[in-house]
Amino acid sequence: MSPFVEKLLQASRSRQSLLCVGLDPDPALLPPSVLHGRALPEAIIAFNRAVIEATADLVCAYKPNLAFYEALGRQAFAVFAETLAAIPRDIVTIADAKRGDIGNTARLYAQALYETFGCDAVTVNPYLGYDALEPFLAYSDRGVFVLCRTSNPGAADLQDLPVLPEGEPPRPLYQHIAALINRWNTHGNCGLVVGATYPSELRRVREICPNLPILIPGVGAQGGDLEAAVRAGVDANGELAVVNVARSVLYASRGDDFAPAARAAAQALRDAINAARHRTASG
Amino acid sequence: MSPFVEKLLQASRSRQSLLCVGLDPDPALLPPSVLHGRALPEAIIAFNRAVIEATADLVCAYKPNLAFYEALGRQAFAVFAETLAAIPRDIVTIADAKRGDIGNTARLYAQALYETFGCDAVTVNPYLGYDALEPFLAYSDRGVFVLCRTSNPGAADLQDLPVLPEGEPPRPLYQHIAALINRWNTHGNCGLVVGATYPSELRRVREICPNLPILIPGVGAQGGDLEAAVRAGVDANGELAVVNVARSVLYASRGDDFAPAARAAAQALRDAINAARHRTASG
Repeated sequence: MSPFVEKLLQASRSRQSLLCVGLDPDPALLPPSVLHGRALPEAIIAFNRAVIEATADLVCAYKPNLAFYEALGRQAFAVFAETLAAIPRDIVTIADAKRGDIGNTARLYAQALYETFGCDAVTVNPYLGYDALEPFLAYSDRGVFVLCRTSNPGAADLQDLPVLPEGEPPRPLYQHIAALINRWNTHGNCGLVVGATYPSELRRVREICPNLPILIPGVGAQGGDLEAAVRAGVDANGELAVVNVARSVLYASRGDDFAPAARAAAQALRDAINAARHRTASG
Repeated sequence: MSPFVEKLLQASRSRQSLLCVGLDPDPALLPPSVLHGRALPEAIIAFNRAVIEATADLVCAYKPNLAFYEALGRQAFAVFAETLAAIPRDIVTIADAKRGDIGNTARLYAQALYETFGCDAVTVNPYLGYDALEPFLAYSDRGVFVLCRTSNPGAADLQDLPVLPEGEPPRPLYQHIAALINRWNTHGNCGLVVGATYPSELRRVREICPNLPILIPGVGAQGGDLEAAVRAGVDANGELAVVNVARSVLYASRGDDFAPAARAAAQALRDAINAARHRTASG
């Protein structure tokens, strides 16, 4: 088993949790008390720290989406680094960067996210093909979550197109990608991203890739059904699904009680996920 | 005509140039004299400034690839901003970010690159579908270069897959994307990215999209043939191709003469591109 999958399993077993909290700080939604008397970058660091402290015993992973940091301009990566530094080391960190670039450029992205920032895993886009993923896959102790069937309404535009790979029957592009990732996963460190908003596609991907971690965004604000996503996404042991929720935890309250409210929301989600896992296991 | 296409045409006409210089500063390749006595971020700013000053009358665009900046860690976006600030305002700036994310996240990336950093254009990845591109397209005065057929060896893995869109004949995925972009280009601000390393695919894309700007990376270090790429990539007027070259300009010399050497390399490339344009026009 790859060190990344081992870390993920250990984090989710020790906390009995498949929950991942998306650390996507939106300035327009931050509690006013956090912003008070602070510049925005400091406010976001304080907010993220408080959310992490309040939820760290309830999650297997945190997933900061780079867009929310890059929007800060020059301070972007200082805030990103401080956020990562606040996460306990035994919890998985997933840089949601959706990177995809060619050879030497992909190498730099991988280096920045794995080495400079020390993230455990990165999300990547498969459109450029194997050699664009290879520099990420080469970090054999880290994880690589490849976009497969995304959670957005437009996902079908390309991902559902029937493709005709040579010598194979036609199938939707996202299923072809799931099959390719099985082949490309020579270090055992690949995962896939499949949106909770499409549980039947998620089930199909789990059939094609019975042993890969699947990162599942789209529960909550995006409308994905938690129970259906968990039942479709877990492996045969009820594990290796990473269910990401951002807004409904981060902004559970915008009052002074935002941190305990985030904790309560995370606890309810963790418990609901576990209830769905047990129902799946028992039938 | 969209303000972006107008700016691109004006920049290339006033300088008689389809050349774009990729501002991809690689610490391992910087001239030792630039590094001497400077911290890396300052050295990169000084290097980029010198290259821009030496080449600004020879190019229609500059294209910094974000990976080279993000590799700098916390200083990343300060260096990126200083680099952009050194570019004369009438030259097109293309943030080579290859971004692709969903709804609100895509909006943040667009805001960061167009507003916070003031770039004229951004490269984006189409895999997530229309709604992931829409927040970029909505900046109707800016440009959006959509990845179509990339310059790397693995491009064929997905981009050449035959797809079967409903009610249409089968064709390679990249050609389907070129056709989709024609439809999605309601603001007239779309372009495409097609690698110089695949001139026949480039010609096919130019046939499908006779009026779109095409950004053409892959000449030089990646081995693309300049003459073939220019002939395949220009529109009927010999325009709207943006030929990107990075390494062979930036690192034309690693001595103290790196700036005049970059200028000489850029001039030779511009002239070679123009010679190919004229041969195309005359038959």
